Amino acid sequence: MNVYAAPVRDLRFVLEELLAHRSLSLPGFEEATPDLVEAVLEEAAKLAGDVWGPLNKIGDQQGAKRHSDGSVTTPEGFATAYQAYVEGGWNGIGVSEALGGQNLPEVVASAVQEMLHGANMALGLCPMLTAGAIEALAHHGSDALKATYLPKLVEGTWTGTMNLTESQAGSDLSQVRTRAVPENDHYRISGQKIYITWGEHDAAENIIHLVLARKPDAPEGNKGISLFLVPKFLVNEDGSLGERNDVTCASIEHKLGIHGSPTCTLSFGENGGAIGYLVGEEGRGLNHMFTMMNEARHKVGIQGIGVAERACQHAFAYALERRQGRSPKTRGGAECSISDHLDVRRMLLSMRSRTDALRALALYCAAELDTARHAESNDARQAAQARADILIPVIKSFSTDQAVDIASMGIQVHGGMGYVEETGAAQLLRDARIAPIYEGTNGIQALDLAGRKLQRDNGEALATLLHDVYATVEQLNADPALSVLSSGLAAGLEDLKAAQVIVQEQGSDPETGADAVQAYATPFLNLAGHVLCAWQMGQAALSAHAALNNGSDDPFYTAKMRSAEFAITQWLPVGRAQRTVIEAGMQCLSDFEVH
Amino acid sequence: MNVYAAPVRDLRFVLEELLAHRSLSLPGFEEATPDLVEAVLEEAAKLAGDVWGPLNKIGDQQGAKRHSDGSVTTPEGFATAYQAYVEGGWNGIGVSEALGGQNLPEVVASAVQEMLHGANMALGLCPMLTAGAIEALAHHGSDALKATYLPKLVEGTWTGTMNLTESQAGSDLSQVRTRAVPENDHYRISGQKIYITWGEHDAAENIIHLVLARKPDAPEGNKGISLFLVPKFLVNEDGSLGERNDVTCASIEHKLGIHGSPTCTLSFGENGGAIGYLVGEEGRGLNHMFTMMNEARHKVGIQGIGVAERACQHAFAYALERRQGRSPKTRGGAECSISDHLDVRRMLLSMRSRTDALRALALYCAAELDTARHAESNDARQAAQARADILIPVIKSFSTDQAVDIASMGIQVHGGMGYVEETGAAQLLRDARIAPIYEGTNGIQALDLAGRKLQRDNGEALATLLHDVYATVEQLNADPALSVLSSGLAAGLEDLKAAQVIVQEQGSDPETGADAVQAYATPFLNLAGHVLCAWQMGQAALSAHAALNNGSDDPFYTAKMRSAEFAITQWLPVGRAQRTVIEAGMQCLSDFEVH
Repeated sequence: MNVYAAPVRDLRFVLEELLAHRSLSLPGFEEATPDLVEAVLEEAAKLAGDVWGPLNKIGDQQGAKRHSDGSVTTPEGFATAYQAYVEGGWNGIGVSEALGGQNLPEVVASAVQEMLHGANMALGLCPMLTAGAIEALAHHGSDALKATYLPKLVEGTWTGTMNLTESQAGSDLSQVRTRAVPENDHYRISGQKIYITWGEHDAAENIIHLVLARKPDAPEGNKGISLFLVPKFLVNEDGSLGERNDVTCASIEHKLGIHGSPTCTLSFGENGGAIGYLVGEEGRGLNHMFTMMNEARHKVGIQGIGVAERACQHAFAYALERRQGRSPKTRGGAECSISDHLDVRRMLLSMRSRTDALRALALYCAAELDTARHAESNDARQAAQARADILIPVIKSFSTDQAVDIASMGIQVHGGMGYVEETGAAQLLRDARIAPIYEGTNGIQALDLAGRKLQRDNGEALATLLHDVYATVEQLNADPALSVLSSGLAAGLEDLKAAQVIVQEQGSDPETGADAVQAYATPFLNLAGHVLCAWQMGQAALSAHAALNNGSDDPFYTAKMRSAEFAITQWLPVGRAQRTVIEAGMQCLSDFEVH
Repeated sequence: MNVYAAPVRDLRFVLEELLAHRSLSLPGFEEATPDLVEAVLEEAAKLAGDVWGPLNKIGDQQGAKRHSDGSVTTPEGFATAYQAYVEGGWNGIGVSEALGGQNLPEVVASAVQEMLHGANMALGLCPMLTAGAIEALAHHGSDALKATYLPKLVEGTWTGTMNLTESQAGSDLSQVRTRAVPENDHYRISGQKIYITWGEHDAAENIIHLVLARKPDAPEGNKGISLFLVPKFLVNEDGSLGERNDVTCASIEHKLGIHGSPTCTLSFGENGGAIGYLVGEEGRGLNHMFTMMNEARHKVGIQGIGVAERACQHAFAYALERRQGRSPKTRGGAECSISDHLDVRRMLLSMRSRTDALRALALYCAAELDTARHAESNDARQAAQARADILIPVIKSFSTDQAVDIASMGIQVHGGMGYVEETGAAQLLRDARIAPIYEGTNGIQALDLAGRKLQRDNGEALATLLHDVYATVEQLNADPALSVLSSGLAAGLEDLKAAQVIVQEQGSDPETGADAVQAYATPFLNLAGHVLCAWQMGQAALSAHAALNNGSDDPFYTAKMRSAEFAITQWLPVGRAQRTVIEAGMQCLSDFEVH
């Protein structure tokens, strides 16, 4: 069993029932009707299930390969599958019409991305990076740069990369040393970048690198860093491809997973300097990058959810098929499916419930991003952006940590078979394991939430969000059948509020080194993730319960009820423990001498 | 950084200070003086650090290889490293003198095993399986079988295997179908066994397979299963090796990790039947296996701890070396080690604290096993065995789950470097991931604890153990400086007791399928693991605090204090949440329709 079927019904449940398609009523999305969205999801499901999914294992086994001339070939079928994606117009799905895209809301684009990452995460990374390049160019590029590069990037005929990391500049990008020397209308870029995803490959005719670098006279630190566009092939005035630029793939990494995705070390300027063009303002490179990184982080969260969904599918299929032992009901009788054992079922429901919850939260955030971009009123846009800003580090970090755990639990459901690579369950753990690391480690996300995001508005955006969580507590409480969920969620909410007070009141004290933000960031984010996921499952319970009360006998809704019950009564309590962790203080951390 | 230094000081702290060398005062261990134990640990550390450890990565990269003639070669250096182990007399370290061993207590043997598994888990599996074979033969073999096979197995010149699993018989061994047909003084064995660790290899001159099989007239189910000894090479009367027996390696698995350890499918009797000899009584095969499996499970726990320790060492070394960002104290100044960031330090201390705690608990259990075998009074032996029986499923399951998480956290400390195989951190996760699966999945362990072990004496052995935990609560409470640890541990203890009441009172109801044992087994074991580990760290705190109060300025003790504080105030709370999980009931699990 190594197939993937895109979870269209689950995605539609979130889009249609939990979010009530609210993005579709925003100005600018007049043409995106519910029917169109449904058709898009069905088509994407075919691409994911029929074209991308079957290549997932081959991609893992073959991996990307670098040759002595510096060229990189991707696994068998990857280039064709990418072409199918480009020809279907999928690359521009969330891009505005003005830029040549399909202009569908972010919620729809996110749903499609989940499917593609679930089908083939290694291949999904290629357009994910291109999307970042489009974002950066669209926001900060000059008209000339946009005219030359955007159409091909939006089509997907050319792909994009993000060149941030250098060996001495990882989480701290202020240490970037790559140089950019002005020359006529362009710059000469030289230096070495590492961990460049899809930095070199054979699936598209050109690759557009976005590179952080420093002018010779630039100040040290963040303010000396600018953003440059460096194409693999220079582009002639008529748009045709010109000479090869001075950028080469020096090596690719041998990684734990995502073998199909080439992770490159790129050398710029070994022969006089790669030609590059300034994007945006000088010295604002990091800011320009961060604009797009926020959304890239949301996408990494989505990626985790895609892999978690696939892990669920593998585990459910195996547990239903594998017969071993007797269940309480059949004791002494015939062998049962292992899915009949309550202990195995705990694993299955845990995997399913968490995946459901993470998906609902990530799509909720996508809807906020839609509002942030399209709402009529400025206030509404700002409020939605502030909410998305709070949610994104949670989604990136919590979804990916959970995805690793879900994939690992999926292995456990398979028993010995799970440890054998042939089964495919192990690949999901290996693939998922990168997601807590890249696009800002999960520790960096936690600091972003507990530090920057919480402190810049004194916790206002989070407080407003928690007000909505409380509304769900009350809605659940109105129906006696759901009151257990109400009280469970209420307890989690209280814990999160208490933790927020501690983090905000104690703050950072650089003098003493007693930095509550640093010390509590990770437990705080973990608690927030649990509570917000439980909130979404409270919403799911309201929706499913209403459908069942209205006479539906669809087992989909009864399954969602179980999923919600598990999330709130069995999963949330583990997260709630993080309040106790925070209340225990940071003394042992600050006193600990690492040696 | 990919070296391993055996944690001799930490092991000695547990043996000498927490356990006060109590095994050494048992009858039969008169010659095992503290000095001798110290010398043994130092020598083992050399073997682990200098000989086994450096082969860990090569073993992963090369893996074991099967050739077309069915032979299997192990990675470069493995056979020599194994010979060094045999020549050092390490294989018989915990075996009685009567059987040709060194007759050292189990605590010492366990400490040595932790080092060897930390150095090279894939290689460590070979003697681990041999130890199981020795155990089974010593307890159940006829005098003739013992005379022929034990001396070579104890030396390690021959290695042993456990042949239990068949494709339809995994967690449920009652489904074993391998046949044993009587013929003269022996049996003809035919059938196929899977997942046979070190089932075929080139590191020893003979391999002794212990095989579960069924006589043609045997009843169905467990009672028809007997245990047979099937040598790879038949043994002549004079002890020399004779003909090749009819057992071949049909294939080896391509696994997520432990690549150096060949996991074989063995075919018995493709040419008329492999010659095998009955071990113990007919129809008691499973019971005979379980005698040794209990101890094998303890060893798998130890294995997890070895890998966790190595993960700590890698992470600490990297965090100290890697400079990135500024710590609260140096803000604006020079770059700091990432170990200065409280958020990174939380990961480091979490890894260290958990590894310390798991080690202390596993060695505590080893001391109970010593008492169970050697105490003068029958009562003392029985009580210790009952306590070890409770502890073993916890140690197997909790240590290995934690080891996976610790290894994963170790990757996270490395950031992007952790995902690159070259670094070595990823291998630890891949290797560790098998441990929750083999020797009875962790789910099976949980059922063993909450079902068989708790119910056969109505929870008496656990209650007695928790009485000792309470004594530690009181000891901690006697010193105001430790009262926070006392109250933390006390709260955990209350939770565990409450959970025990629920599991025992509700029990199993095969009629309704409301099986509290099945439903709560995993959360119950998880809670027990947290509380018992916290208890051991309470003991560690008492010991370290006393040393510091007596004027020691050894940073080892201050580090142990931090480790204990973290375990009780920051780690235990997460486990305590499992009481809430159990109290939430099992309705959503039993109602969940898996499809």
